Amino acid sequence: MKTYQELSKEELLALKAELEKAYEEEKGKGLKLDMSRGKPSVAQLDMVMDIFDVLNSDSDMISMEGVDVRNYGVLDGLMEAKHMMADMMEVPADHVIIYGNASLNIMYDAVSSAMTHGVMGGTPWGKLDRVKFLCPVPGYDRHFSITEYFGIEMIPVPMTPEGPDMDMVESLVEQDDSIKGIWCVPKYSNPQGYTYSDETVRRFARLKPAAGDFRIFWDNAYAVHHLYDETEQQDKVLEILSECEKAGNPDMVYEFASTSKVSFSGAGVAAIASSKRNLDCIRKTLTIQTIGYDKINQLRHVRYFKNFDGIKAHMRKHAALMRPKFETVLRALERELAGTGIGQWTNPRGGYFISFESMEGCAKAIVAKCREAGVTLTGAGATYPYGKDPRDSNIRIAPTYPTPEELAMATELFVLCVKLVSVEKLLEQMG
Amino acid sequence: MKTYQELSKEELLALKAELEKAYEEEKGKGLKLDMSRGKPSVAQLDMVMDIFDVLNSDSDMISMEGVDVRNYGVLDGLMEAKHMMADMMEVPADHVIIYGNASLNIMYDAVSSAMTHGVMGGTPWGKLDRVKFLCPVPGYDRHFSITEYFGIEMIPVPMTPEGPDMDMVESLVEQDDSIKGIWCVPKYSNPQGYTYSDETVRRFARLKPAAGDFRIFWDNAYAVHHLYDETEQQDKVLEILSECEKAGNPDMVYEFASTSKVSFSGAGVAAIASSKRNLDCIRKTLTIQTIGYDKINQLRHVRYFKNFDGIKAHMRKHAALMRPKFETVLRALERELAGTGIGQWTNPRGGYFISFESMEGCAKAIVAKCREAGVTLTGAGATYPYGKDPRDSNIRIAPTYPTPEELAMATELFVLCVKLVSVEKLLEQMG
Repeated sequence: MKTYQELSKEELLALKAELEKAYEEEKGKGLKLDMSRGKPSVAQLDMVMDIFDVLNSDSDMISMEGVDVRNYGVLDGLMEAKHMMADMMEVPADHVIIYGNASLNIMYDAVSSAMTHGVMGGTPWGKLDRVKFLCPVPGYDRHFSITEYFGIEMIPVPMTPEGPDMDMVESLVEQDDSIKGIWCVPKYSNPQGYTYSDETVRRFARLKPAAGDFRIFWDNAYAVHHLYDETEQQDKVLEILSECEKAGNPDMVYEFASTSKVSFSGAGVAAIASSKRNLDCIRKTLTIQTIGYDKINQLRHVRYFKNFDGIKAHMRKHAALMRPKFETVLRALERELAGTGIGQWTNPRGGYFISFESMEGCAKAIVAKCREAGVTLTGAGATYPYGKDPRDSNIRIAPTYPTPEELAMATELFVLCVKLVSVEKLLEQMG
Repeated sequence: MKTYQELSKEELLALKAELEKAYEEEKGKGLKLDMSRGKPSVAQLDMVMDIFDVLNSDSDMISMEGVDVRNYGVLDGLMEAKHMMADMMEVPADHVIIYGNASLNIMYDAVSSAMTHGVMGGTPWGKLDRVKFLCPVPGYDRHFSITEYFGIEMIPVPMTPEGPDMDMVESLVEQDDSIKGIWCVPKYSNPQGYTYSDETVRRFARLKPAAGDFRIFWDNAYAVHHLYDETEQQDKVLEILSECEKAGNPDMVYEFASTSKVSFSGAGVAAIASSKRNLDCIRKTLTIQTIGYDKINQLRHVRYFKNFDGIKAHMRKHAALMRPKFETVLRALERELAGTGIGQWTNPRGGYFISFESMEGCAKAIVAKCREAGVTLTGAGATYPYGKDPRDSNIRIAPTYPTPEELAMATELFVLCVKLVSVEKLLEQMG
């Protein structure tokens, strides 16, 4: 089989005509599907509806520490919620603070308070001439939005299947004291589904940052979001807090996690894990910022899942739903695009995304073509700081929300758009 | 009856001996009561337990606009929640954004984002040499904590039974462009239970601030927290948004409200009301800050209360519980302290507090004496910026949390401590 690059102009023109016809047919189907974000499916949400039976009008509303969760009090989370989330993050419970419904909000608050009040007594970042963050790319658009919003300069660092390019991370972080942070999704990364190797985590832990207030923003969003049940088919990440402690950098990490993709998106429980010194500073801010987070929802979650084992059992049910979806997409990509030279993709074992690399300069056009035919993908470029993918090639595929049938149709359309745009690009290059 | 000031030294010494004996007896009772914050009582919380039966595993989780509340989406609140909270604030629903579980957090975010990003395109407050807030005193300590935290200079403005001293407010706000805000609790103010008069509200609305980004922080925390059911016994506040609009100042107010003292403290629904232009700016920040607030809890609240009428009906049940508590305190104060010249207090018709004014220089000692005998009151000074009551005379009494029996004992102790400390002060003054 020839790659598309090996086709003659005539062959390309013939192929184009054929693809255009198929595309018009696709458009006629009146598809209307939003695959722009990594959303749980209705079936996943239905699976957790029992959580609403956990609390009723007769329920005991007293926490294990004797707190009436319906009233004011308890700034940093119920002890039972700390235990559950700590186990998820593989850290001790006293290294955890429970927040509200969204870990993104914790990250925003962490950056915002660093801007106005500094990190652990350091100069407020807002008083500095330049503040920079490293951004492994492709990455999560909402991370980049936060740093962009605060005027923080973002430096892209290429991702590899082992994690960010650590030679580059080390050399930048250790030389430039205006680099204050790095955005990381260490497990089943967004969008590639890559998991940081042990060596990567150890190199992170051993960093000697020029800035004393440098922090790793460790967004462990997919800690338990495996696609496969067998342990050997599940990715693992070295626990970063203890690695940092061992390396003499105990305060260098903020780790974030939530049940947004375990229970409900936007109505789960979010948490931060960090050193006690960091947490003490965070608590001081919390005292000003809030009267406390929703303890009733914390109690509801703990009474439902019981503990981390309960979460793991629940996530196996998610996996059973999600695995076929990922496989549907991957099979179609393999069948239609393997050997064509017009696309590469990742094969994640967990998380919420598949990352697709088109030929250079084709991603925006592919996404536009899909949208024209009724399928909205994440905007091309979104996976890069400032929304600018320098190669215009990365596309994030989010297979979780559609039904398997919808997903099969959407993937068929996607593959078609990849082919059509690639043919157009090749013809354009021929002049 | 003589006032304490009219007593001779011998009379005071005799009284002191008698009071000291009584105080020792009180200490012996082993009271242990925390009245430091305005907390709903257990009975109030029990009244709303049915809210947990509203959602169960079979519930329809789709909002009136067709949104699955269990998934991502909807940044600024469910339409039905907007309607309910808008009615509470007497504004149109499109002037409302629903947040998370605490209005304090909205206020913090409003100040924080003004510091880093300015108000509606203005210079970030953090870039200015001086930023000042007016603080009606006595007032709410957590308001003052927010402005103190951000290094905002606080200028106390005396409260009157009609609201803040508006001559002073006008003259300061209209001359000094570094004054960017004022903290207001317009109805049943914290701690005095005063309600702003129509004239006060109109003078607020007609302000001509020197600073274009001056905002009134209108914390309508006790909008529906009446002690009496008859309309003529309930305080009313002119609706500030429309007054500001009429006066040509449509963007001058942020209004805050929540169900923290309607449903659950820390697990209710909070909201902001403001002009559409302000809300558009706030939404831009929210897009960065969060993936959205807890829509399930919003739905739970609306399905339970149905609408604002449901909230009003529920609050009449609160009133029935709270009225006797306020009356217990007020009766004891009247019986024991009227005509003594050693204390004055407010007679609120709603809200969560009674404000007590001791003789100058006695508040801290009274609070300390109460604590020594087992009753923790709000720290003296807390009702003033920086925790400094210049006269050391204001004490906030929070009668809502204790049972009626506990409250009777606590008030007895309080009155005793007021007498004892006053006698000591008068003797000290005699030398």
